[in-house]
Amino acid sequence: MIYADNAATTAVHPGVLAAMMPAFTECFANPSSPHAAGRAAAQAERDARRTVARLLGCEPRELIFTASGSEADNQALRTAAAWGRAHGRAHIVSSAFEHPAILRTLDDLAREGFEVTLVAPTLAGIVEPDAVRAAVRPGETCLVSVMTVNNEVGTVQPVAQIARIAHEAGALAHTDAVQAVAHVPVDVAGMGVDMLSLSAHKFHGPKGIGALVCRTTALGEPLPVVPLVRGGGQERGRRAGTENVPGMVGMAQALTEAAEGFERDCAYVSGMRDRLIDGLTSIEGAHLMGDRTQRNPGTVNVCFEGVNREALLALLDEEGICASAGSACESGATSISPVLRAMGVPPEVAAGALRLSICADNTPDEMERIIDRVRACVSRLRSVAREGL
Amino acid sequence: MIYADNAATTAVHPGVLAAMMPAFTECFANPSSPHAAGRAAAQAERDARRTVARLLGCEPRELIFTASGSEADNQALRTAAAWGRAHGRAHIVSSAFEHPAILRTLDDLAREGFEVTLVAPTLAGIVEPDAVRAAVRPGETCLVSVMTVNNEVGTVQPVAQIARIAHEAGALAHTDAVQAVAHVPVDVAGMGVDMLSLSAHKFHGPKGIGALVCRTTALGEPLPVVPLVRGGGQERGRRAGTENVPGMVGMAQALTEAAEGFERDCAYVSGMRDRLIDGLTSIEGAHLMGDRTQRNPGTVNVCFEGVNREALLALLDEEGICASAGSACESGATSISPVLRAMGVPPEVAAGALRLSICADNTPDEMERIIDRVRACVSRLRSVAREGL
Repeated sequence: MIYADNAATTAVHPGVLAAMMPAFTECFANPSSPHAAGRAAAQAERDARRTVARLLGCEPRELIFTASGSEADNQALRTAAAWGRAHGRAHIVSSAFEHPAILRTLDDLAREGFEVTLVAPTLAGIVEPDAVRAAVRPGETCLVSVMTVNNEVGTVQPVAQIARIAHEAGALAHTDAVQAVAHVPVDVAGMGVDMLSLSAHKFHGPKGIGALVCRTTALGEPLPVVPLVRGGGQERGRRAGTENVPGMVGMAQALTEAAEGFERDCAYVSGMRDRLIDGLTSIEGAHLMGDRTQRNPGTVNVCFEGVNREALLALLDEEGICASAGSACESGATSISPVLRAMGVPPEVAAGALRLSICADNTPDEMERIIDRVRACVSRLRSVAREGL
Repeated sequence: MIYADNAATTAVHPGVLAAMMPAFTECFANPSSPHAAGRAAAQAERDARRTVARLLGCEPRELIFTASGSEADNQALRTAAAWGRAHGRAHIVSSAFEHPAILRTLDDLAREGFEVTLVAPTLAGIVEPDAVRAAVRPGETCLVSVMTVNNEVGTVQPVAQIARIAHEAGALAHTDAVQAVAHVPVDVAGMGVDMLSLSAHKFHGPKGIGALVCRTTALGEPLPVVPLVRGGGQERGRRAGTENVPGMVGMAQALTEAAEGFERDCAYVSGMRDRLIDGLTSIEGAHLMGDRTQRNPGTVNVCFEGVNREALLALLDEEGICASAGSACESGATSISPVLRAMGVPPEVAAGALRLSICADNTPDEMERIIDRVRACVSRLRSVAREGL
């Protein structure tokens, strides 16, 4: 089997699992407990928090561990909305091809009285800073939220520039970096965002653990973080519930391993990605989705004219190739990808979308096999369609 | 070291960890992904859901996996509040010694316009059905939420009777069963509650996974569950975020192991608990908190007159005994236990509280050592206090 769906989720790496083991069975106590076992767990939590904060470029106290990137996205938007209400700002700018965790929460906020402007990305899958500048309203906009890497096409957004535009208008800047962390350089301070979301299972960490970075200084005032879960005083009162120490340790280890091998893995994965792009776009009627260069190392999205994406996925699945047509969070939906639609890709092109997302566990041989099998499957589907006429 | 703080959290059992392993590394895919790897993960999720539902006495579709018991509690209350708003019911009945995840959320709901009546438990730590009956208001009350087992004293509440009273008034019934599941018999249908919260790490499952049972039939209409996290369509749209399959598998295995050894473990742990109660209450000026018989197998709470609980915990910690003065979620708070205060325990008695919570991993020898060391530490603290006079 060739697993080429790493944007949906990744395998937990052996080193990550090994690092988590003691937190399950030995250092398992409640970090809030006032005894030796509790202190050992609290120390494990503190170490993990420091490691993650250091590798993201923020302070440990600015890190709120959540259970998922979706939860972090929800909390970021709820926090910005509360800040907006307190400051008489009821306008939010985001992009039209954000993750559902952003778009559905924006739907809710719109129902609650916020005005939401969704900037359209270009056909190349980029949210242009000028388009954001045209959308923000100084004195009215409370938040600009644009993802760092798009989850379906892999394009990298100019988040640092967008954050500057947000701040010039007196608004907060958030970025959903769930597809970016450990894949492209992510430095919270350097990006200048006030809030950033991430999720461990997108970079070989465990499922069930995400984080929201919530800085307190960018606009010169502490952000009153809105807890989604109320109860105990965990996470400095910003998220109740017994701390998932094994998850935190796993995220820290996964981020550490990614940082250690970053340049090597980037070059290796990008090389395979470029071979995939070359091989797949040499197929007749194939269109690469998203900018060719401004993209993360692992994601390729190619649309094949005259091909139904679900039929293509089914054939590839039979060949032992695990791929997708878009976001796993949107799967089951029968309409074409909202991301490609937002980019202005014609529906008849988007109907033949194939996302392949690879990582350093993949091999060049697998890329050749993928290219070969996609070519064969596309050809087969087209001949079936011709015969059907 | 003797770990006697199992109400704060438990060690993950080897069989649980072994069951989780494949979900981290082999069957690791996103259950929403439409390929062989995704289907394998979806199957693991489905199996875990069926197992947990069967052992709780509900339907698989009535189970919403969350990241914690606190999240489940928050979601239950938010769901009941939304139902109440839709039905013109703005009154909630709960007890005064619930977990902070309930009490803090009720604070929020009170600020949002709900009237909240907190029933006082008896000095024996029981919420009397008659007291609940006096508090509910037919046509006005939307929810009655009383925990199954109190987290600090271990008393078991008459939840089935309370649920009947709620339903007679046309209200929903919820119970926080976080300290109950796998410790006392919990059968959702038998208890008759509409909603029930649980958390895996309280019964040798992993941290980071909880569940809310949300039945659809008790009042003859489906409950519109309020998602706390919005985004993808996971959990039938009731909780967004990539499913924590290893966590679900871990909860299912922990619950299975608990069910298999239930009668044996109950007898074994209750025996040790009774020995602890006998031994500790033979110390002068010792008072057992909570009803002697109506309690779960593993929890003992004894208050020692003239003893400061934090000093006692510190001495026991030096002796290698991990205990607590109350809820880990409340730790760090310097005031006396809100639970004991709600029960009407005099502050000077509550000031000397010691909670010991044991499980089947403990041994009778450990009980003797605990009794011996508590007796010595209490004596030492009292002599220090006398000398200080």
